[in-house]
Amino acid sequence: MFTPVDPQYEERIRSSFERQGAMRLIGARLTRVEPGAVDITLPYRADLTQQHGYLHAGILSTIIDTAGGYAGYTLFPADSSVLTVEYKLNLMAPGEGEYFVAEGRVVKPGRTLCIVQGEVHARSAERSTLCALMQQTLIVLHGHSDDSTRRK
Amino acid sequence: MFTPVDPQYEERIRSSFERQGAMRLIGARLTRVEPGAVDITLPYRADLTQQHGYLHAGILSTIIDTAGGYAGYTLFPADSSVLTVEYKLNLMAPGEGEYFVAEGRVVKPGRTLCIVQGEVHARSAERSTLCALMQQTLIVLHGHSDDSTRRK
Amino acid sequence: MFTPVDPQYEERIRSSFERQGAMRLIGARLTRVEPGAVDITLPYRADLTQQHGYLHAGILSTIIDTAGGYAGYTLFPADSSVLTVEYKLNLMAPGEGEYFVAEGRVVKPGRTLCIVQGEVHARSAERSTLCALMQQTLIVLHGHSDDSTRRK
Amino acid sequence: MFTPVDPQYEERIRSSFERQGAMRLIGARLTRVEPGAVDITLPYRADLTQQHGYLHAGILSTIIDTAGGYAGYTLFPADSSVLTVEYKLNLMAPGEGEYFVAEGRVVKPGRTLCIVQGEVHARSAERSTLCALMQQTLIVLHGHSDDSTRRK
Repeated sequence: MFTPVDPQYEERIRSSFERQGAMRLIGARLTRVEPGAVDITLPYRADLTQQHGYLHAGILSTIIDTAGGYAGYTLFPADSSVLTVEYKLNLMAPGEGEYFVAEGRVVKPGRTLCIVQGEVHARSAERSTLCALMQQTLIVLHGHSDDSTRRK
Repeated sequence: MFTPVDPQYEERIRSSFERQGAMRLIGARLTRVEPGAVDITLPYRADLTQQHGYLHAGILSTIIDTAGGYAGYTLFPADSSVLTVEYKLNLMAPGEGEYFVAEGRVVKPGRTLCIVQGEVHARSAERSTLCALMQQTLIVLHGHSDDSTRRK
Repeated sequence: MFTPVDPQYEERIRSSFERQGAMRLIGARLTRVEPGAVDITLPYRADLTQQHGYLHAGILSTIIDTAGGYAGYTLFPADSSVLTVEYKLNLMAPGEGEYFVAEGRVVKPGRTLCIVQGEVHARSAERSTLCALMQQTLIVLHGHSDDSTRRK
Repeated sequence: MFTPVDPQYEERIRSSFERQGAMRLIGARLTRVEPGAVDITLPYRADLTQQHGYLHAGILSTIIDTAGGYAGYTLFPADSSVLTVEYKLNLMAPGEGEYFVAEGRVVKPGRTLCIVQGEVHARSAERSTLCALMQQTLIVLHGHSDDSTRRK
């Protein structure tokens, strides 16, 4: 388990999440914030689909990239920001469910880089299916707090 | 250069794109459809952003995954569908621009799998910046035409 | 847990491993063969290093790609072969240890594709360090048994 | 095109390559060293193969990871080292040829991170086949020259 250097990590992440226009647009919610572990939950909507009516792979990417980034960010210092360097996503089952839970889990935190794994589960009353698997690299931007870094 | 087996490939792709709820939601348009090459253009909007006001990495993913998938699909037979097996995306500059152009380009088509590279460029009147780089694997689903494959 | 369709899976994998010239050259051994789980162990040698004297990342890749491929292959039918479609590897610590254990674990088997995760641990009498993390896609070649598929 | 900050970049890379035990073991040679572009050539040998007699995917990885790393390193300052953060490799054709050429090409250099693309071509007198495609992230270690960084 991980011990966060910033005891206010949860507040910092909830406040950052609130500033994300894209999360609001798609209807995603932050449903778990623990040291090294963040979940995002997204209900299915017809306007989030690809051509066959399943949840769009890009929308799955959007929630798992965000869950992974914040999972790392729970362990970063207060006056830092987080950026995704890269990630790789395998899509293993159609995005078919009533809602989707993206789980980001830190594998290895570091001073500069942080490695994260992620899963997206498609859920309904009857079942849960692992539909995407991610491996992600984050970078810590020291000395730039999240709420001071703004697009001009 | 590639020669498509289905001469109606452009119509097939435009019709599939129209069925994507997610493309409509974010305001993406299909701006190039050629054999092995598809571009998608997305204007910046404040409701597509991450916490710093830049275009969300997941939205960049959504347009480049789609451009890559359709680039491959131009070369697939008429009675087939396309699925993304996996992709890897490097984020190289903040998503800062007036609009974004995602360019999917087939590197190697195959009977079952198809390998694609992609780039996303952030553009404004003054400049163009390469902000994301993708490598993607697609799979051909033979005998399942795109418009007959529907979520129940 | 997984149930292999071929009860002779262990013999099939050990015999395939024996035919790998590269495994012999670097001194790798097969140290675990179970359904969906294969380990390969490699002692450190000075002729397997990069410029700083650590185990070369490519050699780490060689053992984890192989462990992952055989982990998948334990679950494939007898008259099939396995090919790596692609993999992504994060290098998280220098390859510094007395020996290295590459652990391939199937996440999702399928009729055509199989998704695998892998870890490489650097070990010595005193400690064990996670030095590499992999996510891999395999493809099943049906109707081509491993020992009948030979380079001309 | 790129302008190296260290005019002695070629000597620095050739000397680093010479210190790699793994390159000597497999018989790889440095056949191009230009700003942002490095090629490594490897003749086929039976002791570098997987179970079907083709060049082992891990050996392909070893040469393309190295070519990519040195491609980035041509652009780094003299008192720095290079480490691979991660890479993703698609294997697109069997490693079948008389020799293999791994080509690393920098896409985006940066102060801390550097993004590289790579290709491996299998060659014989008659033909050249693209057999692997890579996307790679490197990190610059400032203040640690390559020849001063040694495993204890």
